Amino acid sequence: MSELRRDPILRRWVIIAPERAPEIATRRPAPRAEQPDGPCPFCPGNEHLNPRAIAVVPADGPWRVRVTPDKQPLLRVEGDLGRRGAGMFDVMNAIGAHELVSDTPHHAQSWADFSRAQMAELLETYRARIRDLARDRRFRHAIVLKNHGAAWSHFAHAHSHVIATPFTPRRLEEELAGAREYHRMRERCPFCDQVQEEMRATARLVGGNADFVSFAPFASEYPYETWITPVEHWAGFATLPDAALEPLAEVLVDALGRLRVALADPPYSVVLHAGALDGGDQAEFHWHWEIVPHLGGQLGMEWATGIYSNPVPPEDAAAALRAATA
Amino acid sequence: MSELRRDPILRRWVIIAPERAPEIATRRPAPRAEQPDGPCPFCPGNEHLNPRAIAVVPADGPWRVRVTPDKQPLLRVEGDLGRRGAGMFDVMNAIGAHELVSDTPHHAQSWADFSRAQMAELLETYRARIRDLARDRRFRHAIVLKNHGAAWSHFAHAHSHVIATPFTPRRLEEELAGAREYHRMRERCPFCDQVQEEMRATARLVGGNADFVSFAPFASEYPYETWITPVEHWAGFATLPDAALEPLAEVLVDALGRLRVALADPPYSVVLHAGALDGGDQAEFHWHWEIVPHLGGQLGMEWATGIYSNPVPPEDAAAALRAATA
Repeated sequence: MSELRRDPILRRWVIIAPERAPEIATRRPAPRAEQPDGPCPFCPGNEHLNPRAIAVVPADGPWRVRVTPDKQPLLRVEGDLGRRGAGMFDVMNAIGAHELVSDTPHHAQSWADFSRAQMAELLETYRARIRDLARDRRFRHAIVLKNHGAAWSHFAHAHSHVIATPFTPRRLEEELAGAREYHRMRERCPFCDQVQEEMRATARLVGGNADFVSFAPFASEYPYETWITPVEHWAGFATLPDAALEPLAEVLVDALGRLRVALADPPYSVVLHAGALDGGDQAEFHWHWEIVPHLGGQLGMEWATGIYSNPVPPEDAAAALRAATA
Repeated sequence: MSELRRDPILRRWVIIAPERAPEIATRRPAPRAEQPDGPCPFCPGNEHLNPRAIAVVPADGPWRVRVTPDKQPLLRVEGDLGRRGAGMFDVMNAIGAHELVSDTPHHAQSWADFSRAQMAELLETYRARIRDLARDRRFRHAIVLKNHGAAWSHFAHAHSHVIATPFTPRRLEEELAGAREYHRMRERCPFCDQVQEEMRATARLVGGNADFVSFAPFASEYPYETWITPVEHWAGFATLPDAALEPLAEVLVDALGRLRVALADPPYSVVLHAGALDGGDQAEFHWHWEIVPHLGGQLGMEWATGIYSNPVPPEDAAAALRAATA
């Protein structure tokens, strides 16, 4: 039976409608099929086809992770913000950083196949890039985005994006606004409350260890949406200690492996939401990774109306993911 | 040159990035191709394939507009809201109205081909449905949604949706929240200010008459996005007087005809955003129709990060639409 569930942070109601699309797990969006011809510019030996690297891991010898400027950046790094008015409107220059990460030298290696040490090294690279970008006072937030599967990617080599913005991206702003209001009312972090609630209820848990937990959020917007968050309160990703890298890698790779088994390797996005680069919102915000599979046919109504409908109750999604082992 | 523009109501920054995709006008999303076989259930003579009509226009003789319950409703009309808590979360039953409007008896007739009187009659039908739904105190908002083109529709007959919700849909909530804050600061309706600014600046105007204006919003999220709004302040669509139906029909059909010429009949959505059904937010809100063409490849990054990037400056879009006449 359908019900409406309200997300306690985003404060939006989602229609949880299991009778609407029982075949959802096997649906797929139409592929983009924009793969360019020619050699892969991100495979070892073709580094000359890319702009000069921003970071290479390790510094010597064959690379395992490589960061370059995106060739078609959303935002450009050179220049000042030039904030100004235009009639009643506000304008600034499209300044920011858009970096492309070659996650692995292996062209088609999936994150679900990464070893724990390999994922820890990639997470360490993100942390290093975020620390570096935080030194640039023009930037307010940094987002990490990984798209897996052809439907959402322009090219095939396993890659991800690090994007620093001079503004707060809307989805993050919605979370921050909700978190601030929740904190004002209760003087607690809403993400901490949610983690405690999920660990108590257990029905929506997917996996976890002593430091991190993965779960299907109560008011999931999308089928099989999964969040990974630290059990303890933690606002910014830049302050992640070395000792947390492997435990986080373990929970992330585990969740992606379960998704692959449960939904037959669907395309998905993984996004890091973290606090502001200047360390603001320490009390209210709590960094987390959001994993959302792209199962097709979901965006039309939601996009047009802002009415979110999800045919898979998060309890069912979590149960399927818990049962899914390679 | 790219710039960042801030929408004064939604308060989100949009990257206006003309160099990113010059071929955008000819891009198309992959079609959904889910057309069922068999006779069209919405063509005259097949009315028995549908649930019993909620409204038929005219009441006698062959129908020109017909409203039925949606067979796969997002929300169901029977029952009470049953608001309750679940741990730290909020839940209610998925109650609402989801009505399907056969816009015309002609299977494939486009809104751009509607006569002014025909469109006025359809607008009158929406107004009647909204007035009727407003009597149900469980419902807070009513949205009208029209999808044109195969990519966003489940079946081919010219149709639209009227959806009443017991909550405020997110996009609308964002507009309302922004409008309330703007009004608190300036004691003016932000939409009125925007209409005045657009009529003064003229660069983003598409069309209009004495009562209604169409324009490409300053911080358009999507290429060729066009809004149609009354020149005078007006919060709710239910109070639209008869004398306004034909002038509104004129501006709406004109804008859609221009879109068809300028972009070679793209798929698009048209959505009515109006004030609450109980007549709240009279001072702050201002109803409007939003037209957004679906040109493909736009949703990935925006969806995942909340960073909006639009390769067509609204001034260029408005100029192309002004120049586009059949």
